[in-house]
Amino acid sequence: MGKHLTTRSEDYSKWYNELVVKADLAENSAVRGCMVIKPYGFAIWERMQAILDKKFKETGHSNAYFPLFVSKSLFEAEEQNAEGFAKECAVVTHYRLENDPDKPGKLRVDPKAKLEEELIVRPTSEAIIWNTYRNWIQSYRDLPILLNQWANVVRWEMRTRLFLRTAEFLWQEGHTAHATEAEALEETKRMNGVYADFVEQYMAIPVIQGVKSASERFAGAVETYCIEALMQDGKALQAGTSHFLGQNFAKAFDVKFATKEGGLEHVWATSWGVSTRLMGALIMTHSDDNGLVLPPELAPHQVVIVPIYKGDEQRTAIEAAVAPIIEALRKADIRVHFDNRDTHKPGFKFNEYELKGVPLRIGIGPRDLENGTVELARRDTLSKKSVAQADLVTEIQSTLKEIQEALFNRAKDFRANHTTEVDTFDVFKEVLETKGGFISAFWDGTEATETAIKEATKATIRCIPLDRKAETGTCIYSGKPAHQRVLFAKAY
Amino acid sequence: MGKHLTTRSEDYSKWYNELVVKADLAENSAVRGCMVIKPYGFAIWERMQAILDKKFKETGHSNAYFPLFVSKSLFEAEEQNAEGFAKECAVVTHYRLENDPDKPGKLRVDPKAKLEEELIVRPTSEAIIWNTYRNWIQSYRDLPILLNQWANVVRWEMRTRLFLRTAEFLWQEGHTAHATEAEALEETKRMNGVYADFVEQYMAIPVIQGVKSASERFAGAVETYCIEALMQDGKALQAGTSHFLGQNFAKAFDVKFATKEGGLEHVWATSWGVSTRLMGALIMTHSDDNGLVLPPELAPHQVVIVPIYKGDEQRTAIEAAVAPIIEALRKADIRVHFDNRDTHKPGFKFNEYELKGVPLRIGIGPRDLENGTVELARRDTLSKKSVAQADLVTEIQSTLKEIQEALFNRAKDFRANHTTEVDTFDVFKEVLETKGGFISAFWDGTEATETAIKEATKATIRCIPLDRKAETGTCIYSGKPAHQRVLFAKAY
Repeated sequence: MGKHLTTRSEDYSKWYNELVVKADLAENSAVRGCMVIKPYGFAIWERMQAILDKKFKETGHSNAYFPLFVSKSLFEAEEQNAEGFAKECAVVTHYRLENDPDKPGKLRVDPKAKLEEELIVRPTSEAIIWNTYRNWIQSYRDLPILLNQWANVVRWEMRTRLFLRTAEFLWQEGHTAHATEAEALEETKRMNGVYADFVEQYMAIPVIQGVKSASERFAGAVETYCIEALMQDGKALQAGTSHFLGQNFAKAFDVKFATKEGGLEHVWATSWGVSTRLMGALIMTHSDDNGLVLPPELAPHQVVIVPIYKGDEQRTAIEAAVAPIIEALRKADIRVHFDNRDTHKPGFKFNEYELKGVPLRIGIGPRDLENGTVELARRDTLSKKSVAQADLVTEIQSTLKEIQEALFNRAKDFRANHTTEVDTFDVFKEVLETKGGFISAFWDGTEATETAIKEATKATIRCIPLDRKAETGTCIYSGKPAHQRVLFAKAY
Repeated sequence: MGKHLTTRSEDYSKWYNELVVKADLAENSAVRGCMVIKPYGFAIWERMQAILDKKFKETGHSNAYFPLFVSKSLFEAEEQNAEGFAKECAVVTHYRLENDPDKPGKLRVDPKAKLEEELIVRPTSEAIIWNTYRNWIQSYRDLPILLNQWANVVRWEMRTRLFLRTAEFLWQEGHTAHATEAEALEETKRMNGVYADFVEQYMAIPVIQGVKSASERFAGAVETYCIEALMQDGKALQAGTSHFLGQNFAKAFDVKFATKEGGLEHVWATSWGVSTRLMGALIMTHSDDNGLVLPPELAPHQVVIVPIYKGDEQRTAIEAAVAPIIEALRKADIRVHFDNRDTHKPGFKFNEYELKGVPLRIGIGPRDLENGTVELARRDTLSKKSVAQADLVTEIQSTLKEIQEALFNRAKDFRANHTTEVDTFDVFKEVLETKGGFISAFWDGTEATETAIKEATKATIRCIPLDRKAETGTCIYSGKPAHQRVLFAKAY
């Protein structure tokens, strides 16, 4: 099993990379910057997809699918957006390979098959989608359009890390069209709220809802809402964004609608997305030096049963005792896995499921059979206790709930202990270097100050929290008047 | 609504193209050969995905995700496969755009950002996956590997048609690795059977299971199993394939495993897939000159309720009567949609849902309120009847079942009437031109004969049916001895 994991205190970054691979979540592929999401990792992502998809549908959205490619001329139509993504684009220039005459059995790009216009592999789909919406929208009757797509996108990042930053990643992107500014803004906020609820309730990760400063805004957006989480190393992670796009894309793609009153106006837009990056947040928030720790709501297996036996007779007896336990758990909608492989010892399995973060482990051996008990072990606390088989379902139900809450509360306490209000730049720097975390500080609202702080400390404005207090003060950097505190942090 | 649809007898191909667009299923995008799958079309695909995904999991498979790109050197490793797809590949050569100095506001490919090795957008993922499996498989204990992925793939087709043949399409591809030939073959057949069951039971399309002749085989496969369906214009459509890949990919990518007995052997492989092409089969099998006809199992809305009223008072009364109907139908797991838009008249809505193929339509007006009835209209037969509201749930349940069976039986009868045994090439040609459909004929088993028949008639061997009779005869073309009848047809 090769359980030995670098510890978080030794090297947090190495711990993360090792954990992702050893817990069978993902690995780097032969193609630079692209990852393979392994079945166990994908099963977690599938759970996340299913829950989010339901929430999107409950809020009135439908799924659709738009092309992988966008032609260069469409791509460049919204200039800010194009500029934001131009430097990290995969570009398709040819549509055929041919046999290489110099190297038998090898292929080369066929120079005769050059595209007249290059195609960009979508880094995001606003351009493609708004070019399509132009044909779908004539009148106010066609609005709103509330669509989402689950898709892969490509951004040619130079430094990649599994889940956190990869050239290709999976995500969902909502793209909505509205008749009024107010309605689009309401949608932007609603979806940011949907993300916050999902991340807190299912991923057990507390988040701060806020808006981005101008320099951290999505390219082409008027306002970017976001949810920000805090990792165990004191760095922040942007977990989701929801953009109010104003009429920027409608203007770039000439999308107008006849109003009820007989006028002709540009359509208002939003877009919002979360990606496989959430997997990185999930891993980094809860896991420990023994491996992954998964919140029960997202764990592919909530309970694993490991039989402990010598010889076929004991094995048969245990399997007979386990069968009704499995049935009862499944009936209670608990995801249970029975690991009866006889190629591996119980100790090996214990280590494996600890590394993989299964919330509860049931061990059952000959003595348990005699006593009508099992051993129930919790992954988050590593505590064990003996439980009567008769009480098992209710015990497991309540313990899973307890774990879900405990993980959330632990992460919330951590964040509380790592959120510091500071009033001078010296203290700002000291807190950042010693303790890390979120730093709440007055900012004068200028990009110049933001940039200067970033250059001096690597900390950026993560967001201007929605629930900030109404207060005024003095900018920690410039000393100028500031009308709000914002959250700074180093970030992923 | 623009309901007027070209009829099938006027121009089948035009009827299909119009129907796909007018029923809001899909449309061509600005990017050549790529389609936009619209929400209504995507909702049908989502139903298909959900059912198939469940079947894959029930047969022991897990989902995973592999990269979109494959480097040229990996792509060319399995020569047959590479040769099969090289001529229709989208090739990424650059990873950055830059501002065009000659055209302000425009972008161009940055010549400095040329990739050292070109990347192919996956046309299928055997190469990527087997290159990955090499690291996952050491011993027989690591086998079998039973994975599937839902993904987009790109094949640069020159002539495209919505759903049937597009440059980018969505599909699932299963890729499994086995210790023995027998086990891999069994898997190949099992998954072909899973496809057949799905297509018949849910899509209501009867299929023939068979194997492909050598020339129609998947590039790199030892044997290709398939399911073949027959469209209303007498052309066949390959609805799914399951490939026994032998050790071809294991050899190309050097994937060996230590056997239980201490040997070292190449791994055995299968791959299998169905795609958004199934949408084309669904549309063409059941629809009529009035529009789409959907089997209830796949219809996003199984029942639509259209209120008929004048003025707010009637409207309120009808909505009050409809509420408990909707509740009762939802409780019975029936997908019901209440179209209470007041921007459109009932007649418009009737046409719309006819065009969109909703299996059952409920009309409810003031007289129905008095009588405690509704009008229930069937899309497949266009018949209507009055039903007591008290009986509605059971009536709808049984009618949905009836429709599902009726569509399947109608398609099966059509196929029976369009499958002809012929014994001479003259009759072969005559049947093909007059009646079309499947032609069952003796074939001598040679590629030369197959090619000659194809060149003379455009008919290809769709498959060698699994359930063929054991019989021998004379090849209709060459006159040589033939040990089996095979199915010919013109095909999509």
